[in-house]
Amino acid sequence: MRIHGMDAIFKPRSVTVIGASSDPKRIGGRPVDFLKRHGFAGPIMPINPKSAEVQGLPAYPSLAELPSVPDLAVIALPAPMAVKAVEDCAARGVRGAVIFSSGFSEVGAEGAALQARMVDIAREGGMRLVGPNCLGIANVRHNLYATFTPGVETHLPRPGGVSIVSQSGAFGSYCMTLVRMRGLGVNIWATTGNSCDVDFADAVAYCAQDDDTRVIMGYLEGATDRDRLLEALELARARSKPVIMMKVGRSAVGAEAAQSHTASLAGADAIYDAAFRQYGVYRARSVDEMFDVTYACSESSSLMKGDRLGLVTVSGGVGVLMADEAEDCGLDVPALPDHAQKKLKEVLPFAGVRNPVDVTAQLVNQIDLLETNMDVLFGDGDIDAAIIFMSTVGLAADLNEAIRAILEKTRVKFPGKPLLFCSLTEPEGRAAYERAGFIVFEEPTRAVRAMAGMRYFARSFARANEADPVPDLPHLSPLPEGMVNEIEAKALLAEAGIGIVRETLAATPEAAAAAADAMGYPVVVKIASPDILHKSDIGGVALNLRSAEEVRAAGARILKAASEKMPEARLEGLVVAEQAAPGLEAILGVTRDAVFGPVVMFGLGGVLVEALGDVSFRVAPFGPAEARRMIEEIRGRKLLGAFRGAPERDVDALADALARLSAFAAHHGTALETIDVNPLIVGARGQGAVAADAVIIPARRAVP
Amino acid sequence: MRIHGMDAIFKPRSVTVIGASSDPKRIGGRPVDFLKRHGFAGPIMPINPKSAEVQGLPAYPSLAELPSVPDLAVIALPAPMAVKAVEDCAARGVRGAVIFSSGFSEVGAEGAALQARMVDIAREGGMRLVGPNCLGIANVRHNLYATFTPGVETHLPRPGGVSIVSQSGAFGSYCMTLVRMRGLGVNIWATTGNSCDVDFADAVAYCAQDDDTRVIMGYLEGATDRDRLLEALELARARSKPVIMMKVGRSAVGAEAAQSHTASLAGADAIYDAAFRQYGVYRARSVDEMFDVTYACSESSSLMKGDRLGLVTVSGGVGVLMADEAEDCGLDVPALPDHAQKKLKEVLPFAGVRNPVDVTAQLVNQIDLLETNMDVLFGDGDIDAAIIFMSTVGLAADLNEAIRAILEKTRVKFPGKPLLFCSLTEPEGRAAYERAGFIVFEEPTRAVRAMAGMRYFARSFARANEADPVPDLPHLSPLPEGMVNEIEAKALLAEAGIGIVRETLAATPEAAAAAADAMGYPVVVKIASPDILHKSDIGGVALNLRSAEEVRAAGARILKAASEKMPEARLEGLVVAEQAAPGLEAILGVTRDAVFGPVVMFGLGGVLVEALGDVSFRVAPFGPAEARRMIEEIRGRKLLGAFRGAPERDVDALADALARLSAFAAHHGTALETIDVNPLIVGARGQGAVAADAVIIPARRAVP
Repeated sequence: MRIHGMDAIFKPRSVTVIGASSDPKRIGGRPVDFLKRHGFAGPIMPINPKSAEVQGLPAYPSLAELPSVPDLAVIALPAPMAVKAVEDCAARGVRGAVIFSSGFSEVGAEGAALQARMVDIAREGGMRLVGPNCLGIANVRHNLYATFTPGVETHLPRPGGVSIVSQSGAFGSYCMTLVRMRGLGVNIWATTGNSCDVDFADAVAYCAQDDDTRVIMGYLEGATDRDRLLEALELARARSKPVIMMKVGRSAVGAEAAQSHTASLAGADAIYDAAFRQYGVYRARSVDEMFDVTYACSESSSLMKGDRLGLVTVSGGVGVLMADEAEDCGLDVPALPDHAQKKLKEVLPFAGVRNPVDVTAQLVNQIDLLETNMDVLFGDGDIDAAIIFMSTVGLAADLNEAIRAILEKTRVKFPGKPLLFCSLTEPEGRAAYERAGFIVFEEPTRAVRAMAGMRYFARSFARANEADPVPDLPHLSPLPEGMVNEIEAKALLAEAGIGIVRETLAATPEAAAAAADAMGYPVVVKIASPDILHKSDIGGVALNLRSAEEVRAAGARILKAASEKMPEARLEGLVVAEQAAPGLEAILGVTRDAVFGPVVMFGLGGVLVEALGDVSFRVAPFGPAEARRMIEEIRGRKLLGAFRGAPERDVDALADALARLSAFAAHHGTALETIDVNPLIVGARGQGAVAADAVIIPARRAVP
Repeated sequence: MRIHGMDAIFKPRSVTVIGASSDPKRIGGRPVDFLKRHGFAGPIMPINPKSAEVQGLPAYPSLAELPSVPDLAVIALPAPMAVKAVEDCAARGVRGAVIFSSGFSEVGAEGAALQARMVDIAREGGMRLVGPNCLGIANVRHNLYATFTPGVETHLPRPGGVSIVSQSGAFGSYCMTLVRMRGLGVNIWATTGNSCDVDFADAVAYCAQDDDTRVIMGYLEGATDRDRLLEALELARARSKPVIMMKVGRSAVGAEAAQSHTASLAGADAIYDAAFRQYGVYRARSVDEMFDVTYACSESSSLMKGDRLGLVTVSGGVGVLMADEAEDCGLDVPALPDHAQKKLKEVLPFAGVRNPVDVTAQLVNQIDLLETNMDVLFGDGDIDAAIIFMSTVGLAADLNEAIRAILEKTRVKFPGKPLLFCSLTEPEGRAAYERAGFIVFEEPTRAVRAMAGMRYFARSFARANEADPVPDLPHLSPLPEGMVNEIEAKALLAEAGIGIVRETLAATPEAAAAAADAMGYPVVVKIASPDILHKSDIGGVALNLRSAEEVRAAGARILKAASEKMPEARLEGLVVAEQAAPGLEAILGVTRDAVFGPVVMFGLGGVLVEALGDVSFRVAPFGPAEARRMIEEIRGRKLLGAFRGAPERDVDALADALARLSAFAAHHGTALETIDVNPLIVGARGQGAVAADAVIIPARRAVP
């Protein structure tokens, strides 16, 4: 990961502002103003050829005249001059620069060339660059505001554990303000603009390795380098730092709008979605959700270690509402054991005691009820975390305080179990909870969703230590040049250890009959041609043939049909294959995503894939445990269990085939265009899965 | 609708409080305190046998001694005494009572009997009752607070257009406080408790007919009387009053939790969902959503009259985020026409001009850009409503004001097009927008969802005037007693005008062959028996028979199989039916819901229904236009269009069959248990749809 040298940018001991302005409202004036007023501890050295003083600080006419070599240069100059400034910086030994200037790759080829030249200069000089065309960066703990965003002009966030990385300056500024207004503490803030050197992935990786970061918020429009992005996300996961991502453009209309908005080469949105799930990134669908999950993860002393959620309310209805939301979010709200319910009934006969536990308005008269409830919930109920919904009770200062005292006791008695307080409160009442380290929400479903976010990361971090090796495929042949016929395709997949039906190529109907005799009946006969993809459409397939005679007749019919209907097609003869035992038909595919490279798709056959698009994706390669999660994602997964008289399916074999296909695809990398295994016939448990048909299309060799 | 006499409760000219307490914190003291302090204009007459004065008001020892007959009695007495009080009220000519007392139907059979007696007394005396076991009611405009909720102790909502009806006192109080905190104005507030007389439906109907209600918020746990509920919802729709409903218990775990929470006989949640859609009720899934949609609908001067949404932002990313959300909510974010985009490019070359329109941060320097944008959006773009997302810009008082001035101009130029302002704002900045009649959100996706709520109601209100008659079925036979065989079932459906395959009953294989000869080939032969539901499971079906000989052989085989495998079954012979032309298989069903009575289900065959449960419901009866919306709701609807070589299906015929089935089900009402039409074979457009098999199970006659 290319995070070397980034300390010069995010933790500089001294800063120069090139193009510094005396007007604290101008782009070149704002960083001087912010650094000075917000208390940056090291030297601030404005460069301005026309003035010996800028905003009360001694200014210098050029880099050469600076009294010492600054770690970081903030460059607020027109594009061509910015390149010259980088050159000067490199020469003087400056190690990092943040470049606000626009007029680079975002304006076309000429700007892109200018930008490339600037990067070359920096790399040669061992410098790291942020931008150009960005709003800059900040490190709140270091009082470093190398930015011109108005978002830090009058109010600053407090130092804390949230780091923010945004490709968009506008969104980054919006986040900075919201984070502050929500009372969250910030560590690093970075807008990457044109990302000429330090890009989104680098900045995420830098935050992930920084000990002061607890949680990373990301805003991503499109990545360009799959490996660096995934490496950064892996690093964050390995260091148990939740990454909460906003990636817009998931809908058709959104994707179209995004295209008009950004020139980034964005991969298909469904693939981002899959990659995020694969790498444990939480994808937020709204600004509220992004901040709610960030808030919970950054302020909670522990994540939610199991799925069992306890709900305690003063309103049975809201309890049920939260239970509804919990199910949507994949959390359990288990009924408490009988003895626990009995205990609760004893203290309050008309309470709801199942879970949600409804203490009713009686709580107001008998506040100790809450303590009993919490004790029973955690002590007898084997619950992993709880949400306490107090409706309007939190508005009464005395009650609010009494409840907090009880929850503090609960926390001591049952450590490691997140407690989330949900109530309307006055600002001071809320602040008291937050000072005591509690997480507070006003809206009950948002509280549940935030809790689910904490569960999401606990699951993801556990997976970081999971042994799920990508299958090792030592005996792969190279992909042939040009077209691959069906028999070759299956032979290649067989080398990867994927089950295939036995089959053989026969030149004539007579030879097909002999082959079938040798194989045993029933058999399938299909046209063999690299040019015919949809064989059944032209009458090129005969199923369930039970004698040599039937094979001969079918073979002749098929060859005739093929030569009549596709006279241009190269015919290689007939494929004779064993008729696979009946099973559930799955579709496995590999496509090449513009960003993520080879990507594996899974779906169950027929209408699920065709009419509903009920498929899931993963970035290749991955192991069988990941494949199982991929299988679990489709809506039709019920069909894999025992269902309406059909047996439970061999999901192990299916997961193994997916993992092997992913390793195969990753091995061939850019040499591969697409693979379609359709169908893979999944037998009953223990019976394996075999590819009954497969198409492999190698990448067209690029003309050099 | 039973709203007669309810003015005595919600608009009384005088009130007595029976069981009035001198302590303004007690249940019997609070309503006296509230009525007095909050300025109820009419006489307030406390009744307390032990005191001549209550909270500074002259008190009376009994009803008989009151100086005049009050319109409304608030009863805060133990249950048995409350019944006596109602009796006294009825005798004295009081017309309405609100009863706080618990100890009635919620505590068991004895309480229920007490409650029933109380209702009898009231009905006889021409009195209406709210409660018992409720938190009471309020009419904000009339300063009437016949309640003991602490929610109105210190702060009151302003008078306005939102009426709140809640079966739960806890949720009702929570709503009251939230409505106030969100600055919404309230008209009527009603908690119905045990709903012994005035129930949820009555209260909704009362609010719907009240001119001061603009929007109704409802919290429903379970209805008991379908007709009154649907009538109330119809009334609200006819009077163009949006109804926003919270009905918890949609998930499995939530439903289980709800069951433990409330003893209401709740119908299946999916049926509530369908009924709400059918009657134009907006079902909120979170408290935020409930209040956001209520806020938008109550404060906007018009709803959103078409689907075309314009988005103007200073952050391209948030524009795309909103476009994503809009698609999820069923709104269009259409690209602006070329000439409009050109105009926008002219004023700001680097703006995003497609829609979302991204004015960029340049707006801050050039605020007039917004006016141009709005003019082009509405003037050239044929847009129905717009959301203006200003990120943090609204925090700056001067910019906030300048933007508001522009939006006021836009509103004058383009009336009837809702404008929603979305920005972080300071409280005063926000208040200025709201005073000017604008709707303000902070969170962009919530703004979109609220706008979609306004669209939802515009669509629903348009449907109130839609001619969609339920099919008239003049020639229906009564349902037979006991079992109905397949031929009878289809004959009954044919009377309802539902297409069926031609078929006939034959006693022997020989007779079946003769019948097939007369009918023409191919035919299907099936066992005829009222006791065999799954005919193919026992080898009781033969398809695609092409000659008399085949029919004879198949008939003999089927009769043998049936008598061997189900020796107890009554065999009525063989059904000979024409083999329906191939088509798409649909499943139509009727079930009886505990609350909503006969309900029609629709799904497409096979895995969609079986593994995904991809079905939709409607309460019977309904017309073909409603049936079309029902068809549109299933995920597999794509299969009804031209799809993968298959032709477009006869959706008109399918919708007609659904509407006829619904009329049939409604006609037979409680005489009917279930109907299964499986499959209904839907031909290509113009080819109709025919029931190939049907099962009708009449209701078991209850033993009287």
